[in-house]
Amino acid sequence: MAEQQADPLAEWRLRQEPYYQPVGHEIAAFDAARTARLPLLLKGPTGCGKTRFVEHMAWRLQLPLITVACHEDLSASDLAGRWLLDAQGTRWMDGPLAQAVRHGGLCYLDEFMEARADTTVLLHPLADTRRVLSLERCGELLHAHPDFQLIVSYNPGYQGIHRELKPSTRQRFVAMNFDYPDPPTETGIVQREGLASSELAGQLVRFAVRTRHLRDEGLEEGASTRMLVHAALLARAGLSPHDATMQAIADPLSDDPDVGAVLRALVLASF
Amino acid sequence: MAEQQADPLAEWRLRQEPYYQPVGHEIAAFDAARTARLPLLLKGPTGCGKTRFVEHMAWRLQLPLITVACHEDLSASDLAGRWLLDAQGTRWMDGPLAQAVRHGGLCYLDEFMEARADTTVLLHPLADTRRVLSLERCGELLHAHPDFQLIVSYNPGYQGIHRELKPSTRQRFVAMNFDYPDPPTETGIVQREGLASSELAGQLVRFAVRTRHLRDEGLEEGASTRMLVHAALLARAGLSPHDATMQAIADPLSDDPDVGAVLRALVLASF
Amino acid sequence: MAEQQADPLAEWRLRQEPYYQPVGHEIAAFDAARTARLPLLLKGPTGCGKTRFVEHMAWRLQLPLITVACHEDLSASDLAGRWLLDAQGTRWMDGPLAQAVRHGGLCYLDEFMEARADTTVLLHPLADTRRVLSLERCGELLHAHPDFQLIVSYNPGYQGIHRELKPSTRQRFVAMNFDYPDPPTETGIVQREGLASSELAGQLVRFAVRTRHLRDEGLEEGASTRMLVHAALLARAGLSPHDATMQAIADPLSDDPDVGAVLRALVLASF
Amino acid sequence: MAEQQADPLAEWRLRQEPYYQPVGHEIAAFDAARTARLPLLLKGPTGCGKTRFVEHMAWRLQLPLITVACHEDLSASDLAGRWLLDAQGTRWMDGPLAQAVRHGGLCYLDEFMEARADTTVLLHPLADTRRVLSLERCGELLHAHPDFQLIVSYNPGYQGIHRELKPSTRQRFVAMNFDYPDPPTETGIVQREGLASSELAGQLVRFAVRTRHLRDEGLEEGASTRMLVHAALLARAGLSPHDATMQAIADPLSDDPDVGAVLRALVLASF
Amino acid sequence: MAEQQADPLAEWRLRQEPYYQPVGHEIAAFDAARTARLPLLLKGPTGCGKTRFVEHMAWRLQLPLITVACHEDLSASDLAGRWLLDAQGTRWMDGPLAQAVRHGGLCYLDEFMEARADTTVLLHPLADTRRVLSLERCGELLHAHPDFQLIVSYNPGYQGIHRELKPSTRQRFVAMNFDYPDPPTETGIVQREGLASSELAGQLVRFAVRTRHLRDEGLEEGASTRMLVHAALLARAGLSPHDATMQAIADPLSDDPDVGAVLRALVLASF
Amino acid sequence: MAEQQADPLAEWRLRQEPYYQPVGHEIAAFDAARTARLPLLLKGPTGCGKTRFVEHMAWRLQLPLITVACHEDLSASDLAGRWLLDAQGTRWMDGPLAQAVRHGGLCYLDEFMEARADTTVLLHPLADTRRVLSLERCGELLHAHPDFQLIVSYNPGYQGIHRELKPSTRQRFVAMNFDYPDPPTETGIVQREGLASSELAGQLVRFAVRTRHLRDEGLEEGASTRMLVHAALLARAGLSPHDATMQAIADPLSDDPDVGAVLRALVLASF
Repeated sequence: MAEQQADPLAEWRLRQEPYYQPVGHEIAAFDAARTARLPLLLKGPTGCGKTRFVEHMAWRLQLPLITVACHEDLSASDLAGRWLLDAQGTRWMDGPLAQAVRHGGLCYLDEFMEARADTTVLLHPLADTRRVLSLERCGELLHAHPDFQLIVSYNPGYQGIHRELKPSTRQRFVAMNFDYPDPPTETGIVQREGLASSELAGQLVRFAVRTRHLRDEGLEEGASTRMLVHAALLARAGLSPHDATMQAIADPLSDDPDVGAVLRALVLASF
Repeated sequence: MAEQQADPLAEWRLRQEPYYQPVGHEIAAFDAARTARLPLLLKGPTGCGKTRFVEHMAWRLQLPLITVACHEDLSASDLAGRWLLDAQGTRWMDGPLAQAVRHGGLCYLDEFMEARADTTVLLHPLADTRRVLSLERCGELLHAHPDFQLIVSYNPGYQGIHRELKPSTRQRFVAMNFDYPDPPTETGIVQREGLASSELAGQLVRFAVRTRHLRDEGLEEGASTRMLVHAALLARAGLSPHDATMQAIADPLSDDPDVGAVLRALVLASF
Repeated sequence: MAEQQADPLAEWRLRQEPYYQPVGHEIAAFDAARTARLPLLLKGPTGCGKTRFVEHMAWRLQLPLITVACHEDLSASDLAGRWLLDAQGTRWMDGPLAQAVRHGGLCYLDEFMEARADTTVLLHPLADTRRVLSLERCGELLHAHPDFQLIVSYNPGYQGIHRELKPSTRQRFVAMNFDYPDPPTETGIVQREGLASSELAGQLVRFAVRTRHLRDEGLEEGASTRMLVHAALLARAGLSPHDATMQAIADPLSDDPDVGAVLRALVLASF
Repeated sequence: MAEQQADPLAEWRLRQEPYYQPVGHEIAAFDAARTARLPLLLKGPTGCGKTRFVEHMAWRLQLPLITVACHEDLSASDLAGRWLLDAQGTRWMDGPLAQAVRHGGLCYLDEFMEARADTTVLLHPLADTRRVLSLERCGELLHAHPDFQLIVSYNPGYQGIHRELKPSTRQRFVAMNFDYPDPPTETGIVQREGLASSELAGQLVRFAVRTRHLRDEGLEEGASTRMLVHAALLARAGLSPHDATMQAIADPLSDDPDVGAVLRALVLASF
Repeated sequence: MAEQQADPLAEWRLRQEPYYQPVGHEIAAFDAARTARLPLLLKGPTGCGKTRFVEHMAWRLQLPLITVACHEDLSASDLAGRWLLDAQGTRWMDGPLAQAVRHGGLCYLDEFMEARADTTVLLHPLADTRRVLSLERCGELLHAHPDFQLIVSYNPGYQGIHRELKPSTRQRFVAMNFDYPDPPTETGIVQREGLASSELAGQLVRFAVRTRHLRDEGLEEGASTRMLVHAALLARAGLSPHDATMQAIADPLSDDPDVGAVLRALVLASF
Repeated sequence: MAEQQADPLAEWRLRQEPYYQPVGHEIAAFDAARTARLPLLLKGPTGCGKTRFVEHMAWRLQLPLITVACHEDLSASDLAGRWLLDAQGTRWMDGPLAQAVRHGGLCYLDEFMEARADTTVLLHPLADTRRVLSLERCGELLHAHPDFQLIVSYNPGYQGIHRELKPSTRQRFVAMNFDYPDPPTETGIVQREGLASSELAGQLVRFAVRTRHLRDEGLEEGASTRMLVHAALLARAGLSPHDATMQAIADPLSDDPDVGAVLRALVLASF
């Protein structure tokens, strides 16, 4: 964690303090897991602040944060590392997970539900009392740096993936649930992040709350806090609140013509 | 953006001003998104002018435009870059996305709905406030050049793909809807781009409008503005309007014998 | 197009004039598309003369002709080019499409319906007004030589493939329909190409016309002009007309015992 | 075809005359196809003598014979050739098909129905009047040696594969049908190849004919001539005719217990 | 097994004695299998102590323990070894299984049911009287060191995988069944490993037993001993027993809203 | 077969005579196939002695024995050989099949039903009168050493694989059926191999016979002779007959709770 010159994770350190508004006991919960040396599993909808929370904790702990978004083409080698060929022969290059394990830092695996079997299994010995990462391809067994912390997240409400976490994976993690902030908190976030008046921020939050009840209408997921900030920024850049909301929220949310009509009506009624 | 000699994106700069006829507030909308540093998602049918609009904005901004068409075999490495082997060992070569991120420019991902999971996920940290591209294979975290702008597009009416954009992807973008121009505007475009008389251009536009109502007859998608220009050019090259329309519009539109008969009848009735 | 020594496409030039019998306005249609700089899509049954027509046009234009048959294992790299490793390091080798784009020539992609997504998408910027080929793996954006002409073909009646051309691909092309020649023309072709008497050629054409009505009997596709030429050549090599027709037409056409019996009866009735 | 020292196909030449008993006009048919420079398609059941016939023709023509069995993992590169890396850099090595095309010889592709799309398509320009093989990976267009002859074969009665030859492939070939020899001919073959008495050979042929009618009992394919020779050889090596037939014919033919019981009864009744 | 300097498996040796509480005759059973030189198959639910038992035996025997978690992307090469390229050419690097076979040690393959065919088949000659590992890619036949012991495990109650062990694999192993410890034993483990009071440990065990009966409610698998230890550690780190149990047990166990409600009610009733 | 120093197959020679108890005419049958130079196909249930029989014949013939277990990831290259890269360039390394073909020896392909198409097809020219192996990737046609003998085996009763041997593969082999030994023979084997009393051996054989009738109860395959030997060895190592039988037979045989209960009852009734 020293500020020394040759910090191998320097580029993964945050350059400025990220804005974060706590919405419950999440900081105490994080600290308890860290004290107990247990890995964390964050659950919650898209854009509700999971990533921002992790950035906040990295800043508080003054630790580098290495983020990797999981997907079906991410292999264990992408996380652990690989051999490169150069003029002197082969050279091992640590992947992002191995870097965090070796030098100490938060490793945050986003959209973890979409990780492949080889990726999840690679984490098992890291996520129990052994705290080791086996770099099988280079024959090294890496013992985790004391500062290493594993964090994974996913959106349990998203139906697009039919993968399941296996019990042997789940039961290694300590979980924390996230949800959209309550309206006053969310209004404050939109004001600050979107540089918006309290009036516009309030309008946007009320609109968002309505979209979050449209699942029966066929909307996969309602407007996130992130989208409200986008709309506020577009309004600040000169668009009318109506146009900003259409462009930042209603149009991106769905391609379905019927859902689109419902959203357009909601926008008209709200602005 | 300097006109300096060693401009690494020189070959991606447009050589002449592309013709573009605005059909709504799209330029203001684009500018607002750019001011707010938000990525853009363009939706609309094939050949209605999305690509031309992006070329137009690149010319206005005097920025290079790097276009990549997405498909199921396009990997994250194709976008981010790869290691090449030469006599001095391995050398990293930026992919088109990394070039735009590093040196500043518009990166336009066409047919984005067909992108694979590893491609869309690569964009996530570029498409939010972090604006970084993680070149995992070379261990570099690339902070986006201030001129970098991400633009993606797709045709929401096309049924051939059963992939869906995930909420976590959608909600990072600001969207703009495109459609065919209204008849007078489209007639003007065909006159200018197809070097056609106003009479022929008008006939072609009226014919196109009819094909756009044939979805119930089994036609996947109606004639685009692009196809009208093709027909006008063939007529100018010496074919009769009937033959030019058959060859440039009716024959390419469908392989179905029944749909083909309907289209032939429409051509006969129109020319 | 110069006859210079170091012509990089020399081996793709036709060595002698191919025989071709026009069956409609196809030459004028080709010329109009070429004048308008539009790519061509040829549709028609197997062996009806599409390839021969393209060879004929290549000879008329004195341009090299590079033919590639598409299939599900043909990758974009096979068309665009690849890196080879030699003692001096890596060296780029243009694929057949890149050769035609760089040096000027007709590039003919046969059985285009079976092309993979990465192949079709590679053609998009070549097939519109941009006329560029992006060699992403070597970082080069190739502007097409003025003599470059893209031609694709497929058999719309073939049911064996369940792929579809996407509208965004179709609408970039100008189409031409091909069919079997009318009987007198076809008889002339068989006489000339198969070195046959007019009597035998006429018998073969009448037999072929009957096979082309056997789709309800389960025959996937009737005898092509090509097969008639084969039968005539076998007869010239000493087989009886009956044996030549069995061997060159009836036996290759189908493996189904019932269809085979129908064909055998037709041969017996015809020769 | 010269007997010169450095014959590149020397190891593909037959070392002794293969025994072959003609069963019809197949030699004249082969010669006619060769005169007309047309490729051959041999159809017939397993082990009825197709391969032996091709060996016989290779011996008669004093040409090398290169045989390749097709399967779903055989790629176009396996046939055409590939780049090898050695101390001097990369070196091209012709595949078996390219060897036959370059130096002249019979190339026999067995079990052709199982060939992949990239393999069949590679043959198209070789199998029509162009007679060229495009070695796309090394940029060479190979014109076929005058002695080159393409022969493919498959068993149309085998149900295990659900692939179909496309019309565009089929219609390039001249076909010949093969079947089991008539009983006297087959008896002669078993006597000669199996070193058997005429009595045992006759018994085996009569047994084989019965197995060829067991398709309704669930037997995929009856005993081939090859199996009769095996039984005769086992008998000559000391087994009783009953045991030799069980071991060489009944046991290998099927794993189904019911079919096995039928076959055992047939063996008992026959020996 | 000597403590010599150049012990090639040094990093796979346990650094401290792992805590293990025997729950039956498992140690005698293990010893008998080892005496008879037979490989072991451990069956039991997630987190019930299989891995800890193996660590315990490795410590008792003072042998290195090499653990590999199986999954669908683990290839035989990952276990056996691979060729690496360096300046001196290629160099063979033993995989984890080959290391244990060559130098002597316990090789423990976790989640064995998910192993691919090439992995299981690689074990066959190791798991019978031959005790050899064929390193086909380097042409070496490795005879197992006398200390080598093969152990595999899986959870027979887990429904997420539809693979089956083949009889030819199963019948090579001697099996041992594991289950959750009885409540007093489990309470003792939680006290010791979770640094908990006997009261809290008892509460947690009673809660766990209830979750293990929720399979009919849709819970895939109940709380493991491991999870109870996690909850105790969180409580020790300052969380209330209720919050610790929610975070360490109820939240990780399931994403299903209905199951979640049942679990929350159970937590409320228990703490 | 000479005992010379540089025997390239030395490590594949058996070091001591394997115990084998003939159960029928299998040795005479093997000898007859070898005299007739025909390849062998062994069929029979798991663990009934097929592999031991092959080892016995290798010992009798004083030939090396190269065993390869087939599976869906075993490629033709794994059998035939591959190019390795070292400082002098590429070097060819024979695979196990090529070694046996070149130097003479028994090549035994176990679980042959699971072999891929490219593997089975590679064997065709080896398994008929040609007796050649085409090493296509190195351009060599290998004529088999006179001592080369091809043997394959599979378990026809195993339902887990839905692959079929094609007639063109089957009909090249001479088959031998194997089954469990009759009770007195099996008792003798268990006594000798398991170092058991005749009483325990008899008990175990009677138990095994009962498990072999449990297919209707859902047991995939009954206890093999191999498992009886395991149980005897565990008993000798100190377990009670009941525990030894549970651990060596009942527990490994099945994961199904119902089948497990039946087996436990059988064990209780038997010991």
